[in-house]
Amino acid sequence: MNEVINQLKERKSVRVFEDKEIDLNIKEEIIRAAFEAPTAGNMMLYSILDITDKELKTKLSVLCDNQPFIAKAPMVLVFLADYQRWYDAFELNECNPRRPGEGDILLACADAIIAAQNTVVAAGSLGIGSCYIGDVLENCEEVRELLELPEFVLPAAMLVYGYPTQQQKDRKKPVRFKKEYIVFENKYRRLNKEEHEGMHQIKNEKTSINKGAIEGIKALCNRKYMSDFSLEMNRSAGEYMKNFR
Amino acid sequence: MNEVINQLKERKSVRVFEDKEIDLNIKEEIIRAAFEAPTAGNMMLYSILDITDKELKTKLSVLCDNQPFIAKAPMVLVFLADYQRWYDAFELNECNPRRPGEGDILLACADAIIAAQNTVVAAGSLGIGSCYIGDVLENCEEVRELLELPEFVLPAAMLVYGYPTQQQKDRKKPVRFKKEYIVFENKYRRLNKEEHEGMHQIKNEKTSINKGAIEGIKALCNRKYMSDFSLEMNRSAGEYMKNFR
Repeated sequence: MNEVINQLKERKSVRVFEDKEIDLNIKEEIIRAAFEAPTAGNMMLYSILDITDKELKTKLSVLCDNQPFIAKAPMVLVFLADYQRWYDAFELNECNPRRPGEGDILLACADAIIAAQNTVVAAGSLGIGSCYIGDVLENCEEVRELLELPEFVLPAAMLVYGYPTQQQKDRKKPVRFKKEYIVFENKYRRLNKEEHEGMHQIKNEKTSINKGAIEGIKALCNRKYMSDFSLEMNRSAGEYMKNFR
Repeated sequence: MNEVINQLKERKSVRVFEDKEIDLNIKEEIIRAAFEAPTAGNMMLYSILDITDKELKTKLSVLCDNQPFIAKAPMVLVFLADYQRWYDAFELNECNPRRPGEGDILLACADAIIAAQNTVVAAGSLGIGSCYIGDVLENCEEVRELLELPEFVLPAAMLVYGYPTQQQKDRKKPVRFKKEYIVFENKYRRLNKEEHEGMHQIKNEKTSINKGAIEGIKALCNRKYMSDFSLEMNRSAGEYMKNFR
């Protein structure tokens, strides 16, 4: 195993940061890693917002399901799936473009996330931890106004970065599900009840939560899937997606 | 600059492979890197299809905008945004779940792509090249049937992997747009006509295509954005997304 793979394996999300700035040249290096990521047709179907304004960070931390650690992060980037730039380029040069569709924005989301993940890896190699904030998809109307997002732009992910505290460094990385439940050969396969139970049982044992597998599934359903923030994310995502239908 | 960042910068897509298999333990290592990627709430909202069947590879290469190099790749993985597994787990355990929505599937797409990009980085560190095939979003009906995808699953990306030929190693990496057009501070900013021209002019110069910027934009609009495969991708993506509305 080489150093790159080692780092990919060790990497875990960091939500508590040392009170230490990230140097501008290091930030530059991290953003450059995004630029060098694969991008569909070399089109760079994304934009990156570098959130430097403290008040704006605080507002975003509230809009993203009230997570104060976002406001404390020394570096916050929003990765936008962006078809506005290309649409504008086509429109301004009389190409008579169609409106972007659902395929276009899904491709742009992929582009944005590929770039985002490169920053995670680059930051990690420099001793800087990070955490994805999927909640940036919530509260469409407020987020749009705050970040001045036009019609054909959608926040694919937010990432916060900073130097991890010792407690965060020591924290155990959550155990993943076993490969047999996630990887299939050639065709998709739905799991039966026993397999679902087995899948969660094994993970619970490893994490020594040791809650019954079925209770674990039910608890997660209530706590996450049926939660207010999850319903809000779906409503809000629907608003963004309307522009691409 | 460290070795990890160096590799992220050097990485370019590879579409021609040496006639050399990828060892099973190496494949395992690459897939493991996907598993260790960040994932929303540790839920692993994705599945991976390992396409080992030659006939299936060939069919996919046709369905993905007729790109024969796909069929020749020694390793092909499809990254599925997957809410079916969780929905089934909830349903089978009488949680009375709602149907997954657009927010859920966008989050699952992000999860799938984050995992996919980790495999790209891991493969690169082992001397293995890769190429994203966004076209896997096309031809919804045929791809669904071929891969037996249920209602709440969507192919977020396909990736092909293999050892690059010398010609591919020597190929120049395409130049990216300049940072001033992609990264904005705090708020999104739409570019004006001159900026769009400047953005494309600079890139053209660097790649010594030296076509006028406006002609470049127009050509791309015709060749890509208004192309049949692009229209098909939008139609097909719309079909997948219907299940999440």
